[in-house]
Amino acid sequence: MSKGKVCLAYSGGLDTSVILAWLLEQGYEVIAFLANIGQEEDFEAAEKKALAIGATKFVVVDVRKEFVEKVCFPAIQANAVYENVYLLGTSLARPVIAQAQIKVAEENGCFAVSHGCTGKGNDQVRFELSFYALKPDVVVIAPWRDPEFFNRFAGRNDLLEYASSKDIPVAQTKAKPWSTDENLAHISFEAGILENPDTTPPKDMWKLTVDPTDAPNTPEDFSVVFEQGLPVKLVLAGGKTITDPVDLFLEANALARRHGVGRIDIVENRFIGIKSRGCYETPGLTILRYAHIDLEGLTLDREVRAIRDQFVTPSYAKQLYNGMYFTPECEYVRAMIPPSQKTVNGVVRARVYKGNFIVLGRSSDTEKLYDETESSMDELTGFSPEDTSGFIAVQSIRIKKYGEAAREKNQPLDL
Amino acid sequence: MSKGKVCLAYSGGLDTSVILAWLLEQGYEVIAFLANIGQEEDFEAAEKKALAIGATKFVVVDVRKEFVEKVCFPAIQANAVYENVYLLGTSLARPVIAQAQIKVAEENGCFAVSHGCTGKGNDQVRFELSFYALKPDVVVIAPWRDPEFFNRFAGRNDLLEYASSKDIPVAQTKAKPWSTDENLAHISFEAGILENPDTTPPKDMWKLTVDPTDAPNTPEDFSVVFEQGLPVKLVLAGGKTITDPVDLFLEANALARRHGVGRIDIVENRFIGIKSRGCYETPGLTILRYAHIDLEGLTLDREVRAIRDQFVTPSYAKQLYNGMYFTPECEYVRAMIPPSQKTVNGVVRARVYKGNFIVLGRSSDTEKLYDETESSMDELTGFSPEDTSGFIAVQSIRIKKYGEAAREKNQPLDL
Amino acid sequence: MSKGKVCLAYSGGLDTSVILAWLLEQGYEVIAFLANIGQEEDFEAAEKKALAIGATKFVVVDVRKEFVEKVCFPAIQANAVYENVYLLGTSLARPVIAQAQIKVAEENGCFAVSHGCTGKGNDQVRFELSFYALKPDVVVIAPWRDPEFFNRFAGRNDLLEYASSKDIPVAQTKAKPWSTDENLAHISFEAGILENPDTTPPKDMWKLTVDPTDAPNTPEDFSVVFEQGLPVKLVLAGGKTITDPVDLFLEANALARRHGVGRIDIVENRFIGIKSRGCYETPGLTILRYAHIDLEGLTLDREVRAIRDQFVTPSYAKQLYNGMYFTPECEYVRAMIPPSQKTVNGVVRARVYKGNFIVLGRSSDTEKLYDETESSMDELTGFSPEDTSGFIAVQSIRIKKYGEAAREKNQPLDL
Amino acid sequence: MSKGKVCLAYSGGLDTSVILAWLLEQGYEVIAFLANIGQEEDFEAAEKKALAIGATKFVVVDVRKEFVEKVCFPAIQANAVYENVYLLGTSLARPVIAQAQIKVAEENGCFAVSHGCTGKGNDQVRFELSFYALKPDVVVIAPWRDPEFFNRFAGRNDLLEYASSKDIPVAQTKAKPWSTDENLAHISFEAGILENPDTTPPKDMWKLTVDPTDAPNTPEDFSVVFEQGLPVKLVLAGGKTITDPVDLFLEANALARRHGVGRIDIVENRFIGIKSRGCYETPGLTILRYAHIDLEGLTLDREVRAIRDQFVTPSYAKQLYNGMYFTPECEYVRAMIPPSQKTVNGVVRARVYKGNFIVLGRSSDTEKLYDETESSMDELTGFSPEDTSGFIAVQSIRIKKYGEAAREKNQPLDL
Repeated sequence: MSKGKVCLAYSGGLDTSVILAWLLEQGYEVIAFLANIGQEEDFEAAEKKALAIGATKFVVVDVRKEFVEKVCFPAIQANAVYENVYLLGTSLARPVIAQAQIKVAEENGCFAVSHGCTGKGNDQVRFELSFYALKPDVVVIAPWRDPEFFNRFAGRNDLLEYASSKDIPVAQTKAKPWSTDENLAHISFEAGILENPDTTPPKDMWKLTVDPTDAPNTPEDFSVVFEQGLPVKLVLAGGKTITDPVDLFLEANALARRHGVGRIDIVENRFIGIKSRGCYETPGLTILRYAHIDLEGLTLDREVRAIRDQFVTPSYAKQLYNGMYFTPECEYVRAMIPPSQKTVNGVVRARVYKGNFIVLGRSSDTEKLYDETESSMDELTGFSPEDTSGFIAVQSIRIKKYGEAAREKNQPLDL
Repeated sequence: MSKGKVCLAYSGGLDTSVILAWLLEQGYEVIAFLANIGQEEDFEAAEKKALAIGATKFVVVDVRKEFVEKVCFPAIQANAVYENVYLLGTSLARPVIAQAQIKVAEENGCFAVSHGCTGKGNDQVRFELSFYALKPDVVVIAPWRDPEFFNRFAGRNDLLEYASSKDIPVAQTKAKPWSTDENLAHISFEAGILENPDTTPPKDMWKLTVDPTDAPNTPEDFSVVFEQGLPVKLVLAGGKTITDPVDLFLEANALARRHGVGRIDIVENRFIGIKSRGCYETPGLTILRYAHIDLEGLTLDREVRAIRDQFVTPSYAKQLYNGMYFTPECEYVRAMIPPSQKTVNGVVRARVYKGNFIVLGRSSDTEKLYDETESSMDELTGFSPEDTSGFIAVQSIRIKKYGEAAREKNQPLDL
Repeated sequence: MSKGKVCLAYSGGLDTSVILAWLLEQGYEVIAFLANIGQEEDFEAAEKKALAIGATKFVVVDVRKEFVEKVCFPAIQANAVYENVYLLGTSLARPVIAQAQIKVAEENGCFAVSHGCTGKGNDQVRFELSFYALKPDVVVIAPWRDPEFFNRFAGRNDLLEYASSKDIPVAQTKAKPWSTDENLAHISFEAGILENPDTTPPKDMWKLTVDPTDAPNTPEDFSVVFEQGLPVKLVLAGGKTITDPVDLFLEANALARRHGVGRIDIVENRFIGIKSRGCYETPGLTILRYAHIDLEGLTLDREVRAIRDQFVTPSYAKQLYNGMYFTPECEYVRAMIPPSQKTVNGVVRARVYKGNFIVLGRSSDTEKLYDETESSMDELTGFSPEDTSGFIAVQSIRIKKYGEAAREKNQPLDL
Repeated sequence: MSKGKVCLAYSGGLDTSVILAWLLEQGYEVIAFLANIGQEEDFEAAEKKALAIGATKFVVVDVRKEFVEKVCFPAIQANAVYENVYLLGTSLARPVIAQAQIKVAEENGCFAVSHGCTGKGNDQVRFELSFYALKPDVVVIAPWRDPEFFNRFAGRNDLLEYASSKDIPVAQTKAKPWSTDENLAHISFEAGILENPDTTPPKDMWKLTVDPTDAPNTPEDFSVVFEQGLPVKLVLAGGKTITDPVDLFLEANALARRHGVGRIDIVENRFIGIKSRGCYETPGLTILRYAHIDLEGLTLDREVRAIRDQFVTPSYAKQLYNGMYFTPECEYVRAMIPPSQKTVNGVVRARVYKGNFIVLGRSSDTEKLYDETESSMDELTGFSPEDTSGFIAVQSIRIKKYGEAAREKNQPLDL
């Protein structure tokens, strides 16, 4: 008698294979689910393995298009970044995967969902908050937070022995001394030897991007066209032009990867209050985001930008990082992105070279906020310098009072 | 009979030489003032020229130490940046120069100060708001906003003719097709051919930094020690160690310059509401700021960082950019910087290579916010995974309601 | 030969009558414009007077509906308030009047608009920034900033003499020792004897509301229904029900006026940097806004509210106060209001009594964010108290580190 | 053999009496702790009862002075308020009580602390986060989150039976249909019949303040003197003058209480994500806070106020509400309060009348930010109206572009 159906996020690796077997052992029927979000993975091998272990069914869902169009591109529009540095590659993927998993769970009559996230990380939170929003009555089975499970599998050896006992094949390759998570936007490296924040990542850890010292000696130029803040066209040096969002994103990845652009190494603050060291490669997102920021300089009103920068970007980034995508406040903040981007239309010409992203120039046919004549220091057209005197005089009313008060109180102003 | 003494910010160039002569012609006595803020300049030639034109006195004030210690270092502590990109090199210098000029004006009995800033730029505002705060009764003479002056000197030829008529020597070197402003922290390039935002700056424009493509093929490693967010020690690869603030800053400059680090090219929003294109080289400040940001990851509490990032940094940057240094609000915001930096103590090891700044590792002997064991995905010490279940359950109360409401209203949540 | 047509905002009072005559004297043709925005005014007398002085035409535009629906109600939705106290009654009216005036100017072929605002106040800025946004090429004639005008009319006597010389009738009533501005939302009192911020306003100054000490001894109850944050129904104690927006607003005014609700007395900061004392009566807006705030407690998600409170409300209020309604940033911020109000549906029952607004209760048929069972301290339904232990444990990870560091450094935490 | 000493926050009521007995039953030795924070309570009866039940010791700590000076007054300086309405009366008391309890625990060798808070409220979080910060290794025993306890005592009858079985005397007075928490700053009412947010609180629920309809018909005037934002003197109508902080606070309470000032009724958002209805009386704090806000109008710079209002006040209020007093971020935000208050020196004259707080006037001998002449609409002294033209012209550069773009795109600006 089954205790009911569980939809397990299954990767084909050791952990989720053991979890699959353990769930079966507990009396559940298991639907194995795997999202294709652009990671390099052998989907067929995973399917074969899941079914061999005993899954009732194996479902792969291709979410790449949604991932790029509904999440990555808005993140570019909003210049999303966490703690000055992290481009949120993993965070962006979580709501997309969670939504697909809940859909599979519902289509297959599962009362519960399960995952292999550890009990200290961000991902468990990101997945589960999305699960609960999308299906408030869902049951979540998180083995790594279940004492029965984590006490039984205290070390890697316990997992290996259990796998062996269940005839679960284990890859012969030696486990790398860190863990990774990969999708179309990035790959992350953390844990293992990286847990010492003073350990420089070994050169062979990096996977997506070439090392800047090994990158070509010749820079490569390209241009990106934006409409309302969204990248709509990528033109490479040779003239190759890409407009399909997923293809554009993939080509931006390829371009940045071959020139070593997009590596990050930080100590960040997890949602649960622990500091954590992470290394990331986010090639395409890095160059598209930089290009977008540059174009905003030309086309976005100063005050709209200031409001967006101070309120929308950090709120959005924090919500994404903390797994709060499907929340009232994130719905609210997402509604603030497109109205900020109406004028962000134009082209950015740029260059990649040995880890650098360099702007070469930018232009816009439609937006006229930048006015060369007006901006020119040599021209008086359309602008009366005396006006600035009045502007300064009015600004100084308050400031003169400040200076006078300081003098009266014998507390002269100083640097 | 003199109309009184004026203290003129004098650079030795064509514009301020003409202004000097013009002020004399108007009947003022002129004290020429020049701040040494680290720019490459022939101070003796300027003195000789000023006196030759008719200045009563020429005063150079060395403000480099104050500039580094009182303004640049706090900017590093606050991670100051304007519109995501500009490190505020010019803005940082203005209050320091203004304070020195007012001091010279007061010491020499000047009722007025004068400068050669144009009527469309930020610098006139920055100087004058500082003047008015420091000496509320000062009179400001801004020739480029005085119709009598700017109508008389409508083009460069008018200036040259006037100079010739007054026997003012003019440098034979052909004027560059852009203007620059230099100090210890940076050099700016703007106007002229740069006014077209789609014009790529010519390779020979850049002055302080080597072109990344010409930079050494061998990376150079170094480390920076911070105390309470201030750089207190720079150690180069060969072991050379610098602790004096000005020397440290100069050495950071030299290091970044020889590896092509610190170039910026943006369209920014001037205080008076005009967009403007600027190119900047900010070598040392760039690497010290990046190192500081990195160390904050390891040593700064998440919430303190979030508050500082969202409220203090952008407020401070905007105040600096708009020339609001000597204002009640900037005094207030500056008071918020040190309390945020109590725990920012430690070392960042880093590398520069062909335009890149790369973190190699970071550590802190004194701050224990990062806990390798606790952070480790493999350890359960001091942390109960079940707690996270409660954490997620409580976080999800509100979110489940959101999901339920969406279901009830038949508006299913979607990406 | 006319120098062209000017559209003058004409009130019928002494100042704008003199300005009308003076504009004619300068050779302009004048279209007199008067907005009916709910002020108590003799429109016919004004028309007669304007035409008598020499206006080509007199145009009254009734903007009450737009004022209530497009500006006052969104201000209620956003809980708009400036410097904690001022409900922006005058600020709200300005863009509505400016838009009507520009429309009249365009329909009548006027190249310029003119107004009677003083050179120190907010209203000149509010009108003119709206004029320039709505018709960027408009010329603005502001006599009180024109030395020719303000030097000629240095005191009230100069105005009276000029009026007399032009046969302009002047009301016999003695001028009140303060000035007022009135519209459907409020009346303001400032200047004159009120300029001393320590002078208590005389009892007979207040015009719209009864003095609380003279208000009825019997409280009056009512209820307000909101949909998406907008008041859609007002039900009075006797059962009288009003749903038309303008009528609803007028009835709310009447209700608050007879119970002395909505008086304000503050020193505020004008846009141009001068402090200014103002007294205001804002009867209906006060009670509708309070009711709205109360309903948000029941129906609005905590985080949406926090974001709106911290970012949208103060930005919007500042923009309104500074006359920045027709700007990119205000368009942006206004777009943020409706998405915050989706769930603000329900009824607030309240009472007015001698200056007080008292909430009696609130309910919502459609929104279920408040859950009596869940909220109940006596019930365990749907909530596991142990979860809170996990929640607290995770929250305390960071805080324990803080406490430990304090102990290690012998700097014990203290209040 | 004792399992160790526990310091229990003991009120003398049924709940904590049962907890005391239950802790003893579990084998702990109990130190009963009671903070005197200004609540009306029979401390001697509580002591007698605690010892009778079996507490080893009963310790009362008088924290009223610390409460007023270190927490309430800074809250007045910061204008602290949660969700527009709630003055944080309970939140303010928690860190003071927690600190006293930890001190008692440490002095008496207790390894654990215990309290009678429910598992759904804010107070458990506020107490425990403070406990963990002040003594990171403390053990917290929260019986209402312990299944063994809450399953055993599922209803009030279970508590009564247990009390009877342990010879614990129970007050004969019938329990009120709500719960309260009282301190020097306020009393709260929640739960019971108040859980229906549409139930109007019965008139006899309110305890501290007279009903506005029963308040005196004669207003009562008074004045408050502030130094650096702190109330330093209260002068009543008859001339009675109070300067001691606790006495001043008590007298402000008495004044507001007899005129029915300071009642609040809201639905608020608890930290754990549940909405909750609360009624509060906060008499003295209400009038002191209003007076403080008023004085800031006269004496505080506009921009300092704006920064404080937008960033400091809401951050501080949220931290207080969520029990985050002893955290790095609250320490940081508290450091931002005094620098904002340097100029907040002066007197506010005010009136209370039947629930209303009415400002009569304000003045400052030392601060000159308000300048009557400058503010006057009738004076031109020290101010050139033409300057405002330049100010408006510069402000309109950006805005004209906005209007032009709208015209070009045939999307005319509209309200």
